[in-house]
Amino acid sequence: MGTESTNVRVLSTIAEVRSVVKAAQAAGETVGLVPTMGALHEGHLQLVDASQSECDQTLVSIFVNPTQFGPGEDGDRYPRTLQRDCELLAERGSPLVFAPTVAEVYQPGNDTFVEVGAVAKPYEGEIRPGHFRGVATVVLKLFNIIPANCAYFGRKDYQQALVVQQMVRDFNIPIEIVICPTIREPDGLAMSSRNAYLSPSERKQATAIYRSLKLAESLYRNGEADVDTLTKQMRGCLADSNITNVDYIAFVAAGTVHPVERITGPTVVALAARVGATRLIDNHTINP
Amino acid sequence: MGTESTNVRVLSTIAEVRSVVKAAQAAGETVGLVPTMGALHEGHLQLVDASQSECDQTLVSIFVNPTQFGPGEDGDRYPRTLQRDCELLAERGSPLVFAPTVAEVYQPGNDTFVEVGAVAKPYEGEIRPGHFRGVATVVLKLFNIIPANCAYFGRKDYQQALVVQQMVRDFNIPIEIVICPTIREPDGLAMSSRNAYLSPSERKQATAIYRSLKLAESLYRNGEADVDTLTKQMRGCLADSNITNVDYIAFVAAGTVHPVERITGPTVVALAARVGATRLIDNHTINP
Repeated sequence: MGTESTNVRVLSTIAEVRSVVKAAQAAGETVGLVPTMGALHEGHLQLVDASQSECDQTLVSIFVNPTQFGPGEDGDRYPRTLQRDCELLAERGSPLVFAPTVAEVYQPGNDTFVEVGAVAKPYEGEIRPGHFRGVATVVLKLFNIIPANCAYFGRKDYQQALVVQQMVRDFNIPIEIVICPTIREPDGLAMSSRNAYLSPSERKQATAIYRSLKLAESLYRNGEADVDTLTKQMRGCLADSNITNVDYIAFVAAGTVHPVERITGPTVVALAARVGATRLIDNHTINP
Repeated sequence: MGTESTNVRVLSTIAEVRSVVKAAQAAGETVGLVPTMGALHEGHLQLVDASQSECDQTLVSIFVNPTQFGPGEDGDRYPRTLQRDCELLAERGSPLVFAPTVAEVYQPGNDTFVEVGAVAKPYEGEIRPGHFRGVATVVLKLFNIIPANCAYFGRKDYQQALVVQQMVRDFNIPIEIVICPTIREPDGLAMSSRNAYLSPSERKQATAIYRSLKLAESLYRNGEADVDTLTKQMRGCLADSNITNVDYIAFVAAGTVHPVERITGPTVVALAARVGATRLIDNHTINP
């Protein structure tokens, strides 16, 4: 399978991608992996940029992983835009894509998973049971298929980054995990493939998410460190834009999922909310 | 750390063993891994022989893995004989040992495990809850620490071999798993580090285990294919040697843990029984 027009080489089998990665490493080159589910946006592309600046070769995997979607979630309707993705990667000068089928990644009888620990239990893990099990499993599989030197993930998925980092540490995986900043639209909305689901009016509403995170920071800068108070203010800010379906607003010690009652050190504020039918997540770090 | 007297190089840190393996592979050499818990016997040494005949370098890991022992099991009193193990490996011309501490393998906060599937549920998995989770986790860790080309396991641990093979397939681990024959004492007892626990009289009793497996085969050769009948005969054989504490006698389709009611194809007979306080396992394949 090739998309010659874009000068991007799309590998679809494990054997192909392994031989490409092995050949590069045998020639002394380093390989960076950017695991994605496709529907690429500027957030993904800046992961690609980071990999290209640090590694000799960059490989972008595009795979909508079925095991990380629960029943009733949006796995089936998740946007699939391979041709467009390849064009964007070609513009970025990143010519290697691994886009396997589900059957290539999950052979019949597949029955072993990663059992993630406490870091995967609250917040996203509570609301999306099995989600991080699926994420960790596919990331482990990708790491075994593509023994990259570095792998790049976005900070927008804060808890996911923690889960991957914990797995890499616990399983002694010899890949360096690089977490890159959240990329935002000019009005502050964190870039996400799911933003494509938003209607124009929902798109406007959604800006309240980042506004609420910045509000918490600004109130803190003005002397308010109590998390209950900050949470209440954030809910008000969201409600002003008719965002009332809030899964959680979490204040946790940075680098952990441990909730804090007051901001006394680096703190991540993370939230998940529905705008219409679309579930969005975002987070922001407050550094005293 | 070195045991110079035996010409065996004992590596105790992950960094050391990785650099030795990487150097070998960079020089174009293949590496075979023989994962053990030490207390080496001829069964282990024949795994070493197999690795040495197929790989340029052989690395024997010696690590009594705490996560595969349940409460009340023999993890603490499991025999630890590193000096003797090194002497045996030196005699075999196998000079590389990885013998890490528990703290080196399980860093504080270790909280990610392998969730094994249906193959790990019955038999050993039912009687030793968490056992295969611990086995699979430490094997995965060892595979990431030591990216060997091949890894060698004994057929005596039939279900363990299936669990490891399933994990390797499901996680796309690029290591070839080689399963080697069970090595037996002249009287048929399968070699096991746990045989060291047996008193002289228990040692004699224990021969009934393999005798019962061979009895099933011989009855089958004489026309008896019904598993209930064969099981009853095996229990009688074991009882004749006062082995009455039998955890299971299983007839399964070879390469699976699926029980059969009649022998119609390649069938593995597996059993676990206590001789005194010592739990022993063994298995034998009947090929029609």
